[in-house]
Amino acid sequence: MNAFFDRIRRRQGEVNSLLCVGLDPDPDRIPGEFLSQEKPIFAFNKMIIDATADYACCYKPQIAHFAAVGAEAELQLTIDYIQSLGIPVILDAKRGDVGSTGDFYAREAFDRYHADAVTANPYMGGDSLKPLLEREDKGVLLLCRTSNPGGADLQNLVLATGEQLFERVADLAANQWNNNNNVGLVVGATRPEELARVRQITGDMTLLLPGIGAQGGDVKASLAAGQGGGLIISASRSILYPQTSSPGQAAKATRDEINRYHSA
Amino acid sequence: MNAFFDRIRRRQGEVNSLLCVGLDPDPDRIPGEFLSQEKPIFAFNKMIIDATADYACCYKPQIAHFAAVGAEAELQLTIDYIQSLGIPVILDAKRGDVGSTGDFYAREAFDRYHADAVTANPYMGGDSLKPLLEREDKGVLLLCRTSNPGGADLQNLVLATGEQLFERVADLAANQWNNNNNVGLVVGATRPEELARVRQITGDMTLLLPGIGAQGGDVKASLAAGQGGGLIISASRSILYPQTSSPGQAAKATRDEINRYHSA
Repeated sequence: MNAFFDRIRRRQGEVNSLLCVGLDPDPDRIPGEFLSQEKPIFAFNKMIIDATADYACCYKPQIAHFAAVGAEAELQLTIDYIQSLGIPVILDAKRGDVGSTGDFYAREAFDRYHADAVTANPYMGGDSLKPLLEREDKGVLLLCRTSNPGGADLQNLVLATGEQLFERVADLAANQWNNNNNVGLVVGATRPEELARVRQITGDMTLLLPGIGAQGGDVKASLAAGQGGGLIISASRSILYPQTSSPGQAAKATRDEINRYHSA
Repeated sequence: MNAFFDRIRRRQGEVNSLLCVGLDPDPDRIPGEFLSQEKPIFAFNKMIIDATADYACCYKPQIAHFAAVGAEAELQLTIDYIQSLGIPVILDAKRGDVGSTGDFYAREAFDRYHADAVTANPYMGGDSLKPLLEREDKGVLLLCRTSNPGGADLQNLVLATGEQLFERVADLAANQWNNNNNVGLVVGATRPEELARVRQITGDMTLLLPGIGAQGGDVKASLAAGQGGGLIISASRSILYPQTSSPGQAAKATRDEINRYHSA
């Protein structure tokens, strides 16, 4: 097991939690008390992190939420702050590009921001992922079956072999791209039957499951389908902007709901 | 025809050129005289732009080359400078994400950087592209068949229908995603036979062809295969870092080579 997945597993044991808190700071939804501060996004994130750290195995800042408003410095502060607490960071960037440019995406995620793992898009194939995969101590989480309905447009296409495209991606990830044991897959928690298929193909590979909470993913069904290997279960908006509780309460409730169905 | 593709076509007529100059500034290859300046990447880009503007229908800055070194401000300066000359800018970002996050990628490209068009990745499907496609005056250039060998890993998979995946992407782009006439496709100049197939599927859709120059794409074969609709032919490293001539000479030679085979 590589350094990143090893750290995730240890942290999951320490806080008894599979929950990844997604940091998708939306200026339209950040409370006014933060917006008046000098670094409003970082201030909001720090509040979220302080409130949820006891229940989180990792954090997943989504880079577009920072890039849209030129808040690269606040992204760096956010990552540094999480890591200062000893918690791993997945940079949700969904990058990918051909060789020479792929190097620069690896540098962005790992050398500039010092993320522990990054999400990436497999459409351009194995050589496009090589600069990420070569970082043996980092994690590379590849999109496989995403939680949105439109994910079906490509990912559910049936191949001549009878496989669906997302199954082929899972197969490539498990059998061709994982020489450094640093690959995981992103599979939406909104699709338990497809998650079960990915688990079957990939053995004990770690799977990142977004779609819990605001997107309506079913925790019980997802945990049943994903059992047999590493799981990281991600929630973002339901914890950052809870309707009837605080972020800390929402994180604890989500962690507890996961543990109700999770046989560790 | 939408505002972006209309501007490209007019500009192509004005400078008699299909050439797009890709701006992939690599700190390891930028001459020392620029590295000692306060804004080395912008200074290098400005030199390239000034030397090549007479031969370029547009520029395509590749965002990772800026992001890897925290040079967002120099990317903005570069885009502003190109646009001040009346030349359109394609931001090469290859983004894509589910609904709410997709919005932020659209804001990054179009509201923050004011790019005229952006490249995007179709793996997550139509709804992930919607925030980009809704920008009626902008261009959205979707990856279809990329110029790298590993592109075959997914893009050449044969579907149960007999199509290859890249053909299905071309079909979706032409028949489902192009309601605002603002979609184009990225098809590597390294694969003329596949380019011909994309042209057949997409009618007169504008195709962006990277892979000329350093990647060895065949200009004559690409022009023959791509005829019948809009073409933007992109070269980056062979113009930024020419072996035996200046960037201006390399751009002119590439433009002239394209025009040798292009029946306008």
